This record gives sequence, C-alpha cells and structure tokens, in this order.
Amino acid sequence: MKNITNKIKEPSVASKSGLPPGRLVYIGKETTAPVRITVIDYDADNFAEREVKDLKECFAFKETDTVTWINIDGIHHTDVIDKIGAGFNIHPLFLEDIVNSQQRPKVEEGKRYNFIVFKMLDYNDATKNVEVEQLSLIVGKNYLISFQENIGDIFDTVRNRVRNPDSRIRKYGTDYLAYALMDKVIDNYFVIMEKMGERVEEIEDNAFTKQDTKFIRDISYLRRELVLLRKTIWPLREVINTLLRGEVKEIKPETLLFYRDLYDHTVQVIDSIESYRDSLASVLDVNFSVQSFRMNDVMKVLTIISTIFIPLTFIVGVYGMNFENLPELHWKYGYQLIMLIMAGIAAGMIYYFKKKKWM
Amino acid sequence: MKNITNKIKEPSVASKSGLPPGRLVYIGKETTAPVRITVIDYDADNFAEREVKDLKECFAFKETDTVTWINIDGIHHTDVIDKIGAGFNIHPLFLEDIVNSQQRPKVEEGKRYNFIVFKMLDYNDATKNVEVEQLSLIVGKNYLISFQENIGDIFDTVRNRVRNPDSRIRKYGTDYLAYALMDKVIDNYFVIMEKMGERVEEIEDNAFTKQDTKFIRDISYLRRELVLLRKTIWPLREVINTLLRGEVKEIKPETLLFYRDLYDHTVQVIDSIESYRDSLASVLDVNFSVQSFRMNDVMKVLTIISTIFIPLTFIVGVYGMNFENLPELHWKYGYQLIMLIMAGIAAGMIYYFKKKKWM
Amino acid sequence: MKNITNKIKEPSVASKSGLPPGRLVYIGKETTAPVRITVIDYDADNFAEREVKDLKECFAFKETDTVTWINIDGIHHTDVIDKIGAGFNIHPLFLEDIVNSQQRPKVEEGKRYNFIVFKMLDYNDATKNVEVEQLSLIVGKNYLISFQENIGDIFDTVRNRVRNPDSRIRKYGTDYLAYALMDKVIDNYFVIMEKMGERVEEIEDNAFTKQDTKFIRDISYLRRELVLLRKTIWPLREVINTLLRGEVKEIKPETLLFYRDLYDHTVQVIDSIESYRDSLASVLDVNFSVQSFRMNDVMKVLTIISTIFIPLTFIVGVYGMNFENLPELHWKYGYQLIMLIMAGIAAGMIYYFKKKKWM
Amino acid sequence: MKNITNKIKEPSVASKSGLPPGRLVYIGKETTAPVRITVIDYDADNFAEREVKDLKECFAFKETDTVTWINIDGIHHTDVIDKIGAGFNIHPLFLEDIVNSQQRPKVEEGKRYNFIVFKMLDYNDATKNVEVEQLSLIVGKNYLISFQENIGDIFDTVRNRVRNPDSRIRKYGTDYLAYALMDKVIDNYFVIMEKMGERVEEIEDNAFTKQDTKFIRDISYLRRELVLLRKTIWPLREVINTLLRGEVKEIKPETLLFYRDLYDHTVQVIDSIESYRDSLASVLDVNFSVQSFRMNDVMKVLTIISTIFIPLTFIVGVYGMNFENLPELHWKYGYQLIMLIMAGIAAGMIYYFKKKKWM
Amino acid sequence: MKNITNKIKEPSVASKSGLPPGRLVYIGKETTAPVRITVIDYDADNFAEREVKDLKECFAFKETDTVTWINIDGIHHTDVIDKIGAGFNIHPLFLEDIVNSQQRPKVEEGKRYNFIVFKMLDYNDATKNVEVEQLSLIVGKNYLISFQENIGDIFDTVRNRVRNPDSRIRKYGTDYLAYALMDKVIDNYFVIMEKMGERVEEIEDNAFTKQDTKFIRDISYLRRELVLLRKTIWPLREVINTLLRGEVKEIKPETLLFYRDLYDHTVQVIDSIESYRDSLASVLDVNFSVQSFRMNDVMKVLTIISTIFIPLTFIVGVYGMNFENLPELHWKYGYQLIMLIMAGIAAGMIYYFKKKKWM
Repeated sequence: MKNITNKIKEPSVASKSGLPPGRLVYIGKETTAPVRITVIDYDADNFAEREVKDLKECFAFKETDTVTWINIDGIHHTDVIDKIGAGFNIHPLFLEDIVNSQQRPKVEEGKRYNFIVFKMLDYNDATKNVEVEQLSLIVGKNYLISFQENIGDIFDTVRNRVRNPDSRIRKYGTDYLAYALMDKVIDNYFVIMEKMGERVEEIEDNAFTKQDTKFIRDISYLRRELVLLRKTIWPLREVINTLLRGEVKEIKPETLLFYRDLYDHTVQVIDSIESYRDSLASVLDVNFSVQSFRMNDVMKVLTIISTIFIPLTFIVGVYGMNFENLPELHWKYGYQLIMLIMAGIAAGMIYYFKKKKWM
Repeated sequence: MKNITNKIKEPSVASKSGLPPGRLVYIGKETTAPVRITVIDYDADNFAEREVKDLKECFAFKETDTVTWINIDGIHHTDVIDKIGAGFNIHPLFLEDIVNSQQRPKVEEGKRYNFIVFKMLDYNDATKNVEVEQLSLIVGKNYLISFQENIGDIFDTVRNRVRNPDSRIRKYGTDYLAYALMDKVIDNYFVIMEKMGERVEEIEDNAFTKQDTKFIRDISYLRRELVLLRKTIWPLREVINTLLRGEVKEIKPETLLFYRDLYDHTVQVIDSIESYRDSLASVLDVNFSVQSFRMNDVMKVLTIISTIFIPLTFIVGVYGMNFENLPELHWKYGYQLIMLIMAGIAAGMIYYFKKKKWM
Repeated sequence: MKNITNKIKEPSVASKSGLPPGRLVYIGKETTAPVRITVIDYDADNFAEREVKDLKECFAFKETDTVTWINIDGIHHTDVIDKIGAGFNIHPLFLEDIVNSQQRPKVEEGKRYNFIVFKMLDYNDATKNVEVEQLSLIVGKNYLISFQENIGDIFDTVRNRVRNPDSRIRKYGTDYLAYALMDKVIDNYFVIMEKMGERVEEIEDNAFTKQDTKFIRDISYLRRELVLLRKTIWPLREVINTLLRGEVKEIKPETLLFYRDLYDHTVQVIDSIESYRDSLASVLDVNFSVQSFRMNDVMKVLTIISTIFIPLTFIVGVYGMNFENLPELHWKYGYQLIMLIMAGIAAGMIYYFKKKKWM
Repeated sequence: MKNITNKIKEPSVASKSGLPPGRLVYIGKETTAPVRITVIDYDADNFAEREVKDLKECFAFKETDTVTWINIDGIHHTDVIDKIGAGFNIHPLFLEDIVNSQQRPKVEEGKRYNFIVFKMLDYNDATKNVEVEQLSLIVGKNYLISFQENIGDIFDTVRNRVRNPDSRIRKYGTDYLAYALMDKVIDNYFVIMEKMGERVEEIEDNAFTKQDTKFIRDISYLRRELVLLRKTIWPLREVINTLLRGEVKEIKPETLLFYRDLYDHTVQVIDSIESYRDSLASVLDVNFSVQSFRMNDVMKVLTIISTIFIPLTFIVGVYGMNFENLPELHWKYGYQLIMLIMAGIAAGMIYYFKKKKWM
Repeated sequence: MKNITNKIKEPSVASKSGLPPGRLVYIGKETTAPVRITVIDYDADNFAEREVKDLKECFAFKETDTVTWINIDGIHHTDVIDKIGAGFNIHPLFLEDIVNSQQRPKVEEGKRYNFIVFKMLDYNDATKNVEVEQLSLIVGKNYLISFQENIGDIFDTVRNRVRNPDSRIRKYGTDYLAYALMDKVIDNYFVIMEKMGERVEEIEDNAFTKQDTKFIRDISYLRRELVLLRKTIWPLREVINTLLRGEVKEIKPETLLFYRDLYDHTVQVIDSIESYRDSLASVLDVNFSVQSFRMNDVMKVLTIISTIFIPLTFIVGVYGMNFENLPELHWKYGYQLIMLIMAGIAAGMIYYFKKKKWM
C-alpha cells in the first residue's frame, strides 16, 4: 500500500509513455513479494477452498455452474496477469488497467463479464497515514476474479461468511459476491472517516487558541489528505451509479437493492469529506480572525504606551537642555509644576483613549 | 436526541465495520429506555387506539382494509425491529437502516411498501442546541409503521386529527398519513429556522460594533450548526422529489398535491439556510473590514505622535549634550529660539498630515 | 407591504406549526384594513366594472363566456378567501398559500385552473426601502382571480387598457390578462433595478476614496437587499419557464410568445442582480486594497522617521551623559564633529531608503 | 454606440414602465441622426443595390425568389420600424425588442421568419472604451432585414463579397447571409479580445512591481469591462446553440456547419474572457501578497532599529541623570565601560535577529 | 511549437478579421521551414512507406482498400493545404481550422470523414516551458491525414508499430490508427503532468519556509501555466466523449473500448490539473498565514521592548532635568532607589506580558 499523499506525483504513468498500448507494464511501488492465488468454489450446498500454484487449475472453473472466486494478491508479476487474461478471455486494455495501480476507479462492460476498478483505503496507525491499494474485479457469470496489490486480510470476514453454509452469500451469485467485497471496502472508508473526523474535531477545538505555524501545517496536511481521499472516492460514486442504472449486465434485480445501499454509503462518505473540508476552511478563517484580533490588541498597547510617554519624554528632554538662559529651571517649584503638567497630559490622553474605546 | 453538532464524528458507523451486511446493529446513543408500541386503526367510520405489549397483535392488521398506524418509539432493541421486519416482510437492508440512527435521508421501494427515512429536528431551549432524531416510515397499502428513536409527543397533533371523525385524514389512506407525519416534521423545521434567524439577526446587528474573539466564536458555532442542518435537510428534498416523480408506487394522484406542498416547504427551509450562511459569511467580512479600519486609526495616531515628537526629542537631546564648546547654549535667547524652531517643525508636520488626510 | 430586509426572520410561518394542514391562517403583517373586491367583466364587445360587496355576485361569472377579472385587495380576512375558494372550487392547499404572505413563488395546476404566486416589489422613496407584496392568481378558462395584500393602484394601467375597446387585451382571454398583470409587476422590477443600479454606481464611484465604517455599512446593507431581491425574484424564472414548457394548460399558443418575453425580462433582472452583487464584492476588495496601501504609506513614514532619529537620539544621549572622564566633550570641535557625523548617518539612511524605494 | 461601462444603470428600460406592452418606445441614447435604408437584391446571377427613401419600395421584395437584404441604420424613428413591421408581418413584441437597444441577445421563431438579436462591439481607440451597439436580424425565406443603431461601415466587407459574382455568398440563401453578418460581428469580438489581452498582459507584467492605488484602479476598471463583455457575449452562445439544435427553421443543413463554426468562435471568446478574469483575480492576489511582503520588510527594519536602540537610549539616559550620588560617573573608565557594554548588547541583539532570520 | 504562456494574447486571430470566411490564412508563428509529406500505406499483409514530393501521389490512395496515413509536417504553406483539401474533398471551413494554429480542440463530421483537432504538448527541458503544437486529423474510411505544425518525431513509435507486421495496428482500420495517434499525444500529457507535479511538490515543500516575492512569483507562474494547460486539454474531453457517444461515424464498435480508455486518461489528466491548482491555492493561503504569524512575532518583540523601555526612558529623563530644585537628586540613595523602582516596573510589565501570553 502506498501513502495516499505520495500519489500526487504520478511518476510511473509517465514512465510508461512511449510503449505501445496493449503491452502489460506494472505501475506501482517496487515489490518482490510472491503472488498468492486462492480459489473458493461454492454454491448453496458445496464449498471448496484452496491455494493454487498452477494457474491452469483455475481455468477449469470457468464453465462450471458453481460460483468461483479467484483472489490474486500481487499484480507486479505481469506474466501471471497475462496468463489469467488469456485463460478468461479478458480484454488486453483491462489487463493493462489491472496492473496500473494508479487507474482511476471505473466500471467497463467486457464481452461476458464486467470489469470494476476501485480503491481500498487503510489507516496505518503507526505512521498516521492513509494507505491506498487498488482492487480490480472481473465479474463473470459464474466466476469472480479479484486482484489486490498486496497480500491482505481485509476479505477474511467475507471468506468466513462464504464458509458458513447458512449465510445469504451462499444462495446468491457472483453479483452478490462482488457487492460483499465492495461493501467491505466501503465499510473501511467509514473507519478512515472516523479517524479524519477525530482529527478535524481536534483542530476545531484548537481553532481559537492555537496560534502557530505548526497548527497551520496540521490543517494544511489534513486538507491535502482530504483532497486526495475525495479524488480517490469520488469516481466510485459514478461507478456504482452505472451499475445501478443497469447499463451493465449480470446484475440481478434482487441484488440491485444491495448496490443502492452501497451507493448511499459512498454518498455519505463523500458528504463527510466535503463537510470536513468545509470545516477546515472555516477553522483557517476563524484562526486568522482571532490572530488578527490579538495583533490588534498588541498594537493598541504599543500605541497607548508610546503616545503617552513620547510627548512626556520630550518635555523632560526640554528641561534637560543645558541652555544658560532657561528660566523655568530656576523657578522654585518648576520641577513640581512640570510633573503636574505631565500628569495632566497623561490623564488627558488616557481619557481620550477611553473615549475612543482603545482601552 | 443527539445534539446536532456532535454528529460530525460518526464513530458508531465505523464500529460496525467488519460485520456481515444483514445483521442488525443499533447505531446511536446508548439508552436503556423501554420500547413503546402504539397502534391506531381507523377508516372513515371506525377508530381504535391502544398500546400493544405483544408484537403479534400488530401482524393481524397487515391485511385488513382499515388504515393501521403502528408507531414504535425506541430502535435500540434490535430484536423488536427484527420481529416487526419478519412479520411485515421488510427487507433486511431496510431494517439495518432503521436501527442506524445515522442513516442519510432516502426513499426506497420495497416489495409491497415504500421505505422513507428522514430526520426530526428539535430546538432544546435549555441547552440552546438543535437536537436531531431519526424517523423511519414503512408505508404499505393498509398499514404505516413509524420508527422513532425516543418516546416523544411530536405527533400528538396528528393523533388528535385522526381521533376527530370529521378530519380529512380519516378519509384518505396511508399515503396521506405519511404526508401528515412529514408535514409535522417539516413544520418543526420552520421553528428551528426562526430560532436560527433570530441568532443570525442578532449577529448581523453586532457586525459593526463587536470586535472580540467571542463574537467570532459565536459566528463560527452558528455557521457549523447551519452546515449540519443543511446536511440533514438537503437530502429530504431529493426524497420528496422522488415521491413526486411517481417513481415510487402507493401514492395516489389526489395526495400528490400535498407532497408538492411538502417539497415547497423543504425548498424554502433550504433557501433560508443558504441565505443565513451567506449572511454569516458577509458578517465575517464586514467585521474584519471594520476591525481593519480601526487598526488603521490606531496606527495613524501612533504615527502622528511619533513622527512629531521623535525629531523634537532629538533636538532637545542635542542641547542636553555636555560639550564644553556648544555655542548655542550660551546665546541669550537660545532656548526661546529652539522652542520656536520646534514649534515650527511640529506645525509643519501637522500641516503635512492634514494635507495627506491622515488627521 | 413589508420592508424586504425584515423578511429574514420568517417568524409567522413557524407560529403556524402545530395546526393541521388545510386550516386557513393568515401569515403576514397585522392589518385591519377592509377587503375590497372589484370585478371587471369583458370580451371584445362588452365591458362592465363594479365593486362588489356580496361575494355571491362573483360566482355568477364562473360559467359565462366573457373574461371575468376578480381582484381582491386584502388577504387577512380568511373567511372571504374561504368563501371564494368554495365558490370557485379552489383546492384548500392553494387557499393556504394565498393567505401565507411568505409563500415562495410557484405555479401549480389545479383541476380547471392554474395557480400562480409571485411577489410585487415597490421602492418606497420615503424610507429608501424595497417593499414586497404577494400576488396570487387563479387563472381559470373564463375567469381570473387576483389576490393582493393591500389596496394598491399598480394595476390601474392594466384596467385602463381593458376599458379601451380597441386594446389587444380585449381580444385575448384570461391567459393574456394574466400575462398583462405579470408584465406590469416585472416592469416594476426594472424600476427597483434602476434604483439599485444608482446606489451601486454611487458606491463604485467612492470605492477608491471612502475609507470608513459607514461606507462598509452601506455596502453591506445594499448587498443584503440584493440577496433578498434575488431570493424573491429567482423562483419566478422557474415559474414562467414551467408555463413556457407547456406543462400547465390554459395557455394558448398565441400567448406563449408574450410569456417568453416575460421570461426574458426576468432573466435580465436576475442578470442585473448578479452583476450588482459582483460589483459590490469587487468594491469591497478594492476598498480593502486601497486601505491597505494607505496603511502601508503610513507605516513607511513612521519607519523612516523612527529609523533616522532613533540612532541619532541615542548618540546625543551618549554625549548627555555625566561621566567625569568623557574625553570627546572636551574636544574643541567635538560638538561640530558629532553634528556632522549625525548628518552623515541621516544621509546614509535616506540613501538606503531611496534605494529600497521606500521614499 | 454607447460606452459599455455605462450600461450598468439601465435607466431607460425602467422609464418605459407603465406603458402597455405593444407600444413601440425607443430605448437608447438620444440621437437625431437620420435613418438610412439600403437594399441589396441578389441571386447567383443578378445583383442590385440602392438606398431607398420610401419604405414601400422594400415590400415588393418580400415575395421575390431573389435574396433581399434590407439594412436599416437607426432605430430611434419608431414609425419607420412600425411601417417595416406592418409590411413584413413582424410580431409587435419583436418590434419592441428591436427598438430597445438594451435587449438581451436571443433568437425567436416568428411565423415565417426567425428573429435574432445580439450585440456588436467596437473598440474606440480614442477613448480606450469598448462601445456596444445592438444588431437585430429578421431572417425570412427570401429576405433578411438588419437593424443597426447607427450608420456604420462594419458590413462593408460583406457587401463587397455580395457584389462579387463568384463569391460563395451569392450561391447561398438568407441563412448564409445571416451567418456572414454574425461572423463579421464575432470576428470583431476577437479584435476586442486582443486589446483586452494586451491590457491584461500589461497588468500581469506589473503585478510584482506596481504598488499603488492607480494600479488597483486599472485592474478594477478592466475587470468591470470584462464582466460587462461577458454579460453581452454569453447569451449569444445560447442563441447560436438554439440555431444549431435545429429548433428554428429556415437554416439549411449545408449552412449548419458554418453556424457550428460561429459557435466555436463564440465559445473561444468566452473562454478568453474567463481566463482574463481569472488572470486579473490572480494579479490582485499576487499584488496583495507582494505588498504584504514589503510591509513585512518595512516592519522588520523598524523593529530591528527600535529594539536595538531603545534599550541603549535608556542606558545613556541613566548616566545622564543628575543624581549627586551616582558612583559609576566617577569611575575612571566608566564611559568606556558603558560603551563596551552597549556594544555587547547591540551585538547580542543582532545575533538574536540573525538567528530568528529577521535580518 | 509555441511557449504555452504566450498564447494569452491571441493576436493573430484578430489580424484575420476583415477577410471573408473561406480564404485560407495561416495563423501561427512565422516560419520558413519546408513542408514534409510522408505516406504510409498498409494492411495486414502489405506495407509501404515513402516521402512524397508531388501531392498528386497522395490522391491515388484515396480509393484503395488499404489504410493510408498521410502525415504533413508544416501548415504554413497554405497552398499545400489547399491542394490536399481539393484532392480529398475537405470542407473549406475545416481547412481554415487546420491552418489556424489557435483552433479550439473539436471534432466535426464531414461528408465522408471525421475532422479532429487537438493539441500536442511538449516539455522543453532547456527553457522549462510547456510548448504547444496543434494536430489536426482527417479520418476517412481508408485514409487518415495528420497535420502537424512542425517536423517532429513524436509519432515514431507509432510508425514502428505499423512497420511491425505482427502488431495489432496492422489488423485494424483508420479508426484504430487515429486512436494510436491520440493515445501517443495523451501519453505525453502525463509526462507534462509529472513535471508539473514535481514543481507543485517542490512549492508545497517550501510553503512554510519561503517568505519572499520570488516564491509568490513561482507560484503565480506555475498557476498560469496550469490554467493554460487546462484550457488546452479540457475541450479534448468533450471531443472524445462525442466520439464515444457514437455521434460520429467511422468508428467501429471494437475500437470504442480503446477510445473509452483515452477518455479515462484525459479525465485523469484534468483531475490532476485541478488538484494541482487546488494545491497551489492552498499553498498561497498557508504561506500568507505563516507570513502573518511571523509578522505577529515581530510586532510582539517590538511591542515588548518598546513598552518596557519607553516608560523607563521617561523616568531617567526626569532625573536628567536640570531644575535647581529637584529634591530626589540630593537623596543619598536616590540613584539606587530609582534603579530599583525601574527594575520593579520592568518586572511588572514582563509579568503582564507573560500573563497575556505575548512572551
């Protein structure tokens, strides 16, 4: 998984420029992890699960009536993807999209299957970063192939439900399995939103008190993360909407309601992102206003002190002059008089400031 | 009811992540209040009302020709919801939405009923907070089931109208009853808007005079409330629009006009929220401008005092020096001369400032 | 008529909350003025006009072939509205809208008539306020009922045209009469726009010179008025568009062109409001920039004076010290030398500021 | 032609308020210039051109098969427009629009003709103003009537092309002639855009150096002009789009491609206006930032000088006191010591400022 | 190729104003380079490639069944374009667009071909500028004519693929060839985006540390480049969408999927541009905030120093006065006392500032 904030560079897509379309090139983080392929084959009554070493074992399931879920962890071995593509007649362009870990979420209709790409998000508690991983689904009539970038356990709960002979998933087809996988991924979005929400709230709590560059830096960083989350999740809304509009086959009417639920959840996540962004913008405004009020207070103190003492300092300077003929110096109560006059000036100024509401 | 500004966290939805879809999990404020179930059964001529203890009593009404309104106060006992769902054949996904108090407002078409979710708002005079509660409606041909989070009296006026044998509500079906409930809820929105309007107006009145952090804090808090109100009410517009477009069955043409009226009211509430937000933004701008004008005034005074006295103080400093050979000190009218010169300088500067319009 | 800027509160709508829908409640300014009902009955050849006391006189015109225009000034006597509604079979919801002077502009199709609500605007030269009044039209095949809040003379020109046997209005039906009334109201919008335009222009002329809180207050107030004008006029655009799209019956093709003209005018008014708002926003920006330039100028003068004299004052302070052993004091031309040195420092600083372009 | 920036007032439209629709009232700049009517009659083989004095001469061309272009310079003589309207059966509302020089650009379908209104723009090199003039076209099957506000030579190139028997215009009908006229007008828009572009570029070049009110004034003025240009040109896009969508008759398929070209050009002009406005907004931001950086620099110098010398001045003040018992004054190297101490303080402060990166 | 930031002027389009439509005028940078014409003729089995000198050689390929790709480098020799147009029956308006290097990207349907215009972008490493070049395609059934402004090697990879008898391109028709060319151009967009991304990232890294005009200038310049990139690429989205919607003939269903891929890529590029612009705007805000925090710090130091020392300086001034009768001067420990008092005042002020959190 990649840290989401690194995605802004998109260097690898460019590095592919110059190659003919149709040649598979892995675009993503360098990795040497092995590819793991697991197959789960089930219907209402039967269930089989195993890890396969030879890809050809998979092809047998293509025409069986049972639901077959082939999960592939690791897309950097493009030859594996190539063989899968050949075995299941997947369009070369889709294979390209599968190995390009920076593909925009989308749904496409192939000849006998649908192709869905979207993003899994995970919050890394250690680094406090949101990590993003691409998930591609090939949803055929009797088989579903899922491609993940790394070996992960996110779908273990789905696997457990499949293992349970009484669960609803055993009675439905691949369209429901696809829903279950997407639902799991979108459920994870809410976990991310919760973390984001906590951080937004913490920032809002500090809007009126924190006045330093670090605070601005925190807001700026969180805002950037939200922008990238939005860029990642936003297209999924259109993807599910396309599925809902029935523009794509293989989704049965009884499963549609579940997809509508997915749509609802996606919209809710996007709504939250928008309102978080809005909140951050508002915090910046408020923080700036507060800072400016403080600046104002500082300036007022400076002005009051200066305007009171500058004239007084001038006056004492006058009587510090060494002129031979400076009559006031020889008055008996000259000093006392000048002190009184200065007290009067100070009082007058304070009165003026009070009237002007500066004090 | 939850304070609306707490909603920003949405922690509970995330806590559900990991569970299979279809298992009922209550998402909302912890509560131990009992669940109250009341049944009102009526048509133009008959009327019966009672509080039921055993859920099975309700199921009898499912097929009768009379209109049956089952009101359930309390959604935290998920087993009750489960039984209701089984008795009335409600889709499991809808049951999930009913017990998730953070569901986005929406309308869905079930097999023989419509499912509507939206939010009730209440202004708590004691805490000066807007409280939000979820209302879910299952609108069947002859029955309407309403789910509230807490025991409340908001629908007492509707109950009174049902009790009155001459009221229009007795002559119409469940679609009109659903309208009456929604109308009551939207009427309450106007009460909230009135309170908000008063606070906006108070803030507008102070836009030119209040210059402190507390004022900014008030604006910021009210703005946040308006954002959340908007997020709560906005989807209702689409809900009613879907009902109006006739995409959902069970609404008779003669009731459509009433729903159009609801739509009008919702749009009016949203318009008000928008114009309040606009007003607050404008108050912030104006307040900042005014503050900056004052800052300017302060700076000008500082500048005038400083620029007049700093040079004069220098001059008196010159004649305070102790040089043995400082001829002016021995002039007869040296002191008087220097005072005149300084008066001249001060007058020149004041003239300059007047010309520059700084004074 | 109500001052438009008071509308922001909308208290009365809330006060209705709690009543069943369908009961007529007047929402608007308290008034005890009597209700005036005038009837004009005409076709190409005939013309009759009178003020009626008994409402039943009106009902006779319902089925005649001539065009009958019933104008009702005053909507606070809800019983009068009730009787009219009963006599002409008007839907209770529409009657409610008629007596709610804060209804959003809209058009609805009734059984044998169209119902149109919109706002008349009037500029009160004495108070310099825009006043708003609601106009509701029931446009049947052979009759048109108009409801005004107050007794007014705005439609006198329309009446005069009806009285003139050669005018086009006598040859057309109620759809053209409705057009003539709306055209009159929209013509008045242009008068308001002219007044607004004058005020906007005056503000623009002062954008670079006025630097005080009152100016900001003027802008802020005008901006608020424009927001409310926009809120009042904007929905009318959709109203006329609905009429144009032919979604509503009773409008003959030959009258459609006139409605298209209305639409044009409404769009032009809205365009003007938008460009006025834009201008005001721009004036605020410009004014702020100018103010900040001036602040800058003030700061520069302060800095120049301070930075030149503060070091010099220090130097003269040095030679004002009373140390016994302070050799320079005893030099023959110590004073002259130090004066030269200080002149040199001042010159150097002025040169530095000139180079930095601060002077 | 009127200066475009004067248009913001729109006083004359309001002055018409109160008149019945259908009465022709000239709305525009007062003028006493005579009306000039020229007729060009042509087909592929024939060509005739003359200036007519009696309007009746024109009516003869109404039914001929040749293309007849009647150009009318001057719309303030409403009786001429009235007669033309009667002769060619033009709808009274269109006549009203023709003599209202502030009509919003639009296209309408009449009984046997299309009615198109839009604006000609001209850059007056002397006053450096954009001048706007209204052009109305009545495009019938065999005749085209164009109405200009003033006598102008803008269409001379079109006339020359018509005079040339080999030009494409001679082979096409009135729809192509209308295209040629509109194309000429839109070509002129590019000239305006070029002038605007030069001014925008000049302003962008100065964004980092000019720091005065005049610069802000220039930006503000140019921005206002762009807003008005946009308001003038924007509706033309919709006009041509309506023509393209074929909602209006009389445009032959082979001419459609030319209109698509017009649409392209209009969009390009609007794009340019948008990007110019964007540029100006950005210049304002940048200019403000730069100004604020400079202010910062000024403040830093002030602070550094003040904070260094204010404590030093205090110290020399201490030893300028006249206390009888002030031991340091009698030390042998008191003066030298205090000078060293002060040098140390100054050095420390400079070090502190360097560390803080203020110097 | 032209530097993209120079495009803002668009002088040449205006210079064409006054000419009849249909006359070919080259609009672009002055150049005297020769025109190079290369022809590649191929189908699955055959392949021929050569540079032609006489245009007539090309016309022979018009009716052959093989795919013919005629590439023309240089559009400034309008007579060449004219002859091509005549030979292939290209509409004069399209020829005009081809030689106008500032044509907005678009697609048009001709009689037996489609006409596509869009922009190639190239990053010039030497000047660090994005250079823009127009590419026009005439896509007929059996021939494709591409027009480039300059001799370039961007399509060499496409040529290599055509030369390879096993490549997919040899089996498809002109629609796929057009796709291959557009794909190549859009691949280059990603290279530009990478460069932009690097610069945006560099700017983001400096947002909190760089505080000078040059930094603002860099942001401003990059922002301007992004605006122009957006203006250049944005219309391409609509172009490909038009092709996808099947509004234009000659694109076979099996090629559609490839065009959908193009669309995806274009949207991805536009998304990146938007998020880069967003990032820059945010950097400006953040930078301004940081600067303002620093200013605040500077002001605080100034205020603290001033407010502490100004009153003290006044006090020492008092005892520097030369009054004969100034009793404190003669006290034994007057000096020590006054020093203690001043230390007390300073301590009090520091305590006050600490309490106010200014220190």
